[in-house]
Amino acid sequence: MASIGFIGLGNMGQHMARNLIKAGHSLKVFDLSEENVRYVAQSGAKAAASAAEAATDVEFVVTMVPVGADVRRVFVDSGVIAAARPGTILIDSSTIDVDTARAMHEAAAKAGYKFLDAPVSGGVVGAEQATLTFMCGGDKDTFEKARPILAGMGKNIVHCGGAGQGQVVKICNNMMAAVNMLVAAEALVMGEKLGVDRKVLYDVITTSTGRSYSLERSCPIPGPVPTAPSSNGFKPGFMAKLMLKDLRLSQMAAQSAGASTPLGAAATAAYAMHIENGNGDLDSSSIIKLLKPDIG
Amino acid sequence: MASIGFIGLGNMGQHMARNLIKAGHSLKVFDLSEENVRYVAQSGAKAAASAAEAATDVEFVVTMVPVGADVRRVFVDSGVIAAARPGTILIDSSTIDVDTARAMHEAAAKAGYKFLDAPVSGGVVGAEQATLTFMCGGDKDTFEKARPILAGMGKNIVHCGGAGQGQVVKICNNMMAAVNMLVAAEALVMGEKLGVDRKVLYDVITTSTGRSYSLERSCPIPGPVPTAPSSNGFKPGFMAKLMLKDLRLSQMAAQSAGASTPLGAAATAAYAMHIENGNGDLDSSSIIKLLKPDIG
Amino acid sequence: MASIGFIGLGNMGQHMARNLIKAGHSLKVFDLSEENVRYVAQSGAKAAASAAEAATDVEFVVTMVPVGADVRRVFVDSGVIAAARPGTILIDSSTIDVDTARAMHEAAAKAGYKFLDAPVSGGVVGAEQATLTFMCGGDKDTFEKARPILAGMGKNIVHCGGAGQGQVVKICNNMMAAVNMLVAAEALVMGEKLGVDRKVLYDVITTSTGRSYSLERSCPIPGPVPTAPSSNGFKPGFMAKLMLKDLRLSQMAAQSAGASTPLGAAATAAYAMHIENGNGDLDSSSIIKLLKPDIG
Amino acid sequence: MASIGFIGLGNMGQHMARNLIKAGHSLKVFDLSEENVRYVAQSGAKAAASAAEAATDVEFVVTMVPVGADVRRVFVDSGVIAAARPGTILIDSSTIDVDTARAMHEAAAKAGYKFLDAPVSGGVVGAEQATLTFMCGGDKDTFEKARPILAGMGKNIVHCGGAGQGQVVKICNNMMAAVNMLVAAEALVMGEKLGVDRKVLYDVITTSTGRSYSLERSCPIPGPVPTAPSSNGFKPGFMAKLMLKDLRLSQMAAQSAGASTPLGAAATAAYAMHIENGNGDLDSSSIIKLLKPDIG
Repeated sequence: MASIGFIGLGNMGQHMARNLIKAGHSLKVFDLSEENVRYVAQSGAKAAASAAEAATDVEFVVTMVPVGADVRRVFVDSGVIAAARPGTILIDSSTIDVDTARAMHEAAAKAGYKFLDAPVSGGVVGAEQATLTFMCGGDKDTFEKARPILAGMGKNIVHCGGAGQGQVVKICNNMMAAVNMLVAAEALVMGEKLGVDRKVLYDVITTSTGRSYSLERSCPIPGPVPTAPSSNGFKPGFMAKLMLKDLRLSQMAAQSAGASTPLGAAATAAYAMHIENGNGDLDSSSIIKLLKPDIG
Repeated sequence: MASIGFIGLGNMGQHMARNLIKAGHSLKVFDLSEENVRYVAQSGAKAAASAAEAATDVEFVVTMVPVGADVRRVFVDSGVIAAARPGTILIDSSTIDVDTARAMHEAAAKAGYKFLDAPVSGGVVGAEQATLTFMCGGDKDTFEKARPILAGMGKNIVHCGGAGQGQVVKICNNMMAAVNMLVAAEALVMGEKLGVDRKVLYDVITTSTGRSYSLERSCPIPGPVPTAPSSNGFKPGFMAKLMLKDLRLSQMAAQSAGASTPLGAAATAAYAMHIENGNGDLDSSSIIKLLKPDIG
Repeated sequence: MASIGFIGLGNMGQHMARNLIKAGHSLKVFDLSEENVRYVAQSGAKAAASAAEAATDVEFVVTMVPVGADVRRVFVDSGVIAAARPGTILIDSSTIDVDTARAMHEAAAKAGYKFLDAPVSGGVVGAEQATLTFMCGGDKDTFEKARPILAGMGKNIVHCGGAGQGQVVKICNNMMAAVNMLVAAEALVMGEKLGVDRKVLYDVITTSTGRSYSLERSCPIPGPVPTAPSSNGFKPGFMAKLMLKDLRLSQMAAQSAGASTPLGAAATAAYAMHIENGNGDLDSSSIIKLLKPDIG
Repeated sequence: MASIGFIGLGNMGQHMARNLIKAGHSLKVFDLSEENVRYVAQSGAKAAASAAEAATDVEFVVTMVPVGADVRRVFVDSGVIAAARPGTILIDSSTIDVDTARAMHEAAAKAGYKFLDAPVSGGVVGAEQATLTFMCGGDKDTFEKARPILAGMGKNIVHCGGAGQGQVVKICNNMMAAVNMLVAAEALVMGEKLGVDRKVLYDVITTSTGRSYSLERSCPIPGPVPTAPSSNGFKPGFMAKLMLKDLRLSQMAAQSAGASTPLGAAATAAYAMHIENGNGDLDSSSIIKLLKPDIG
């Protein structure tokens, strides 16, 4: 069993940290919210007074924070890289921009550490049930050393390639998920306006060439999938504002890559309008409200 | 076994007609190309000299022609509706605009016939192997009478609703398929430009929330799916120009419905550019060339 | 002075008919609303009991109706073409789809009449003040004969080319106006969110490469142009639902032409959402509410 | 007359520096290319061996470099801020992202300097003829002090607001210009495909509601404007790759602002495809080739 510093105990991080404890690891935890620290400490973690303290004398550091600037702040400004002992493996599970992820790999390497970008998919439910997917970027050896730790928090642990490539795969996937969701909403609203029953649309398309995960599991029109957020007041699930965050990361990545993403760009604009309408905390499938505000 | 007039013996229709003969039905066939008529006649059909003659003294008329104007020409101008005997069931399997489909239902009803719009998915391979999906619009009783005939040409026979609703479901499905395809191309090109192996992208996303039929079966980047058109010089499969035709039908339907389809509209513009570049006869997955002309 | 049958006395048509009377012409008028007929009759027109009657024994017929199907109904179904005497010049000032306009030219030619498609720009104010622009499609000779009549209703009378080409130029222009308007809204909202004063944005851009008629005259953000609809509660002006109608005509024309219009398509989707939000009767510049619902 | 350090002597900068010399100022110049330094030195500037040296003992520092990272490198890493004497006014005329511009204002302020972001429009011709427009962000007092210097290089010197707001106005303007250009191309190609003469389209629309600077001055279809790049093999003018750069800055700004820019996003994707097709060095009006590759 390993000693782990865990930094970032939000909606996702607190479940991930508790699962590491359940898996038998020894944890030191830190978060800007003292309440969150106390909550995880009750499950058996040691509370640290700072990010740097959490990173001192451990074999692994895991971070789970909102945005790239936070990651930079934790590793560079807060002195995590300086505080950790040689050989510590640094794992960032935040979803952040590719350029910052690569800069963190470089900063870690310069200081003599190994770094892994390891963003997740699966949402709060996946974090709670330890069924997350981890998409990892970094060298193969570091990946293999981190794998048993990640296995305590998720089921599907994938090596995507070198520095930053976990982030790349994550946002490629989420850009596709967002676009597939919006076009499903477009088709379902249009089909129903033209008189077709929404259940029929769902049943035929999920067995045809138009099908996607977004339609099948998160069907954006209320009714056909009783367990989907759309049938439950669009309670998330995966919040629309987080989908917008990932879409924006995809557009930054497209810019870095010199890639053209006409549909990714259109979906980004659509989610931005939707959030401007005050819907950021609803499930991402609520984008259907952009097309039909009174959907029910 | 039934007597059937079959009009339209192109790439799809000639296979469909031959399958009806194999299923034991008695066919009279017509096409503007005498060669096509001769070809199907060799399989045991009776050659008719006109659309009206093919429709005379049969229990069912099946049509499979390129566009809505052709359907109108066959049923109204060529006198099929006038020539058919009372009680004949008229089945149009062409993919056409919803408004024309509805007009045909009305014209048939006025003249005392039953009409079914029954567009298909599955392509030339599905037509040849009698594994097409039929999406049917019309009254339930007519659908039940037509079902045994359609079963001779396809596997999945679905009643989608009233007049025109087979067409509605078909274009909702295909609009989704086109958008799912283009965003898959966007993500795969971007991911590879950022250094991720295309096989890794394919493997991770097909098991994650970004997955779709378009990615899994028709992966637009060459390599990951050896049997896909992309790995075989983009040989169709389903031609890009036909995808554009269906996208344009979707935009006409959106207009009729007063529906907003931002991604459907963007995909229509993208496929129009792609066809303008001379790629209409390639498989629809070749849309990836719009993003990276030298993909290989 | 000429004898003219005028059909369609709505918001635009009633002003146009009255201006023809003021110019000294002799008018017979018809509208489905008896009230509208009475209103124009008070200005000196003769009331006709039907479209056909209005078209009997006149030198010119002018029509101003909502959509292409109405034009077809008036000229073909209502018997205007049959009722008019040989040599009558038929002028349709409605904004309709290019295909219907061309079909009307053909139907008129078959029956021995001359036809001119002559849609207008300038809105209700232009109709009232006889300052409309007429964009005309038809043969040059017919155009020259119609010009004096049109000059009674407008200032700028342009021959755009053959059958239907007045409609083509009109929708090319309006598609551009709509796109120029939406991007102006995007830039102004973004600029203000980033802290720049809206008046500064307006002043600099109207003297720079980003300027357009839509920005200068119909500035979508309230304030910089006190006379613009945006500074007056978005009172039209040119209603958003009419802009959507023209955008949809542009997309039908793109389809007929095999042309790709990525921005025209995106603007169509945006206006469709805006109308779905209940804003159809506001000025077209109100599209800015799609980006910032509480703009003020 | 003032002493000025000028850093960045590329296509734009070398003309700007020479105009400052002509205006009677005393210049020290630096560029990574020794050839560029020699060229401007021949006009009477003193050659500096480094950016820091150019910034030593002058009243103003002017920078004109390609991207935000270069600006950061010059001011922070190369020690310009450290080398300049107290009271020096730092003017950055590069077009860069708003966030970096703001960071430079902050870094300068911390070190006791005044900073002005002052991006230009007008292109190489404007730089050569000293007719550039300067869009300035910074405090009013600094702006007034810098104005006489800028007046040596341009005609229209505008104070847009506080830190970074020159950049904001510049990219708002250029996002509009790019969108107005692309939709002009869409309309002109569509109109011509439908049979209208391109000169007629140009003449009517430039006097109607669809008009814009992009259409009038840089008409993307060859012919109507003989002096436009489109009529001269698309020789720039303003290169397509620079338009893409500005569009990408606009999308980063939209992201910072939480703004939705559906058309800005679509135009960014379009220009990215166009550059991927190898057209980056053509004038930005060459985007019409995306819609019709063989335009001529």
